[in-house]
Amino acid sequence: MTEGLAVLVPAPYGEVVSRTKEALAAQGFGVLTEIDVKATMKAKLDADLEDYVILGACNPPLAHQALQVDRHVGVLLPCNVVVRAHGDMTVVEAVDPAGLVAMTGQESLAPVAHEATQRLRAAIRAVAAPATAA
Amino acid sequence: MTEGLAVLVPAPYGEVVSRTKEALAAQGFGVLTEIDVKATMKAKLDADLEDYVILGACNPPLAHQALQVDRHVGVLLPCNVVVRAHGDMTVVEAVDPAGLVAMTGQESLAPVAHEATQRLRAAIRAVAAPATAA
Repeated sequence: MTEGLAVLVPAPYGEVVSRTKEALAAQGFGVLTEIDVKATMKAKLDADLEDYVILGACNPPLAHQALQVDRHVGVLLPCNVVVRAHGDMTVVEAVDPAGLVAMTGQESLAPVAHEATQRLRAAIRAVAAPATAA
Repeated sequence: MTEGLAVLVPAPYGEVVSRTKEALAAQGFGVLTEIDVKATMKAKLDADLEDYVILGACNPPLAHQALQVDRHVGVLLPCNVVVRAHGDMTVVEAVDPAGLVAMTGQESLAPVAHEATQRLRAAIRAVAAPATAA
């Protein structure tokens, strides 16, 4: 479910988190929530995890459109984008709204979910290959 | 995908939000994120929506277990629980982790997702019929 929606970036975690937020913004997604999974697991369970954040990305016009079609859609919002350390590199991966909606059989949501997936894919692509040299 | 995971509660929104958080806590879920969808849509689009919040609920031991099985699972975390006004009543609905995992075919995640679903279902049931009289 992550075709074109996951990438391994040869750059450190902190830099990739910043680049991911910029790439999401360029596609109209604001980051509404940010869960520091590493810190949460340490605080709650004293468990050690690599750097790992879950960004809750929301494109307001698309979210609004989806809510107008189906008020239940909130359980699938916002669009999660994970950034996590992988050795010296960093993984970025986004949920696939079109895939989720296809699986739930909510056909009426397909067009807006498809656009969300396209925009997330474009953001991931931009993080993988920034327009300006690093 | 919301069998036993959605309920219409004959109580006002604000009260049900509180009851939902308490019921989630009783099942080991902390609320890590809270998106006021009504306020967000008003601020970003000047669009009017009924009271509508998305709670990002996380049961740390279950989340940790899921992450140990599959580091990709973050795109499906936390477990979303929506509370929204519906006339004088209030709808509470939770995502179905077992359903999501079943649809994505990640069999190794099935046991932990099943437990998350069971606990979310118990929380929803508790909101619908609180142990103490209202």
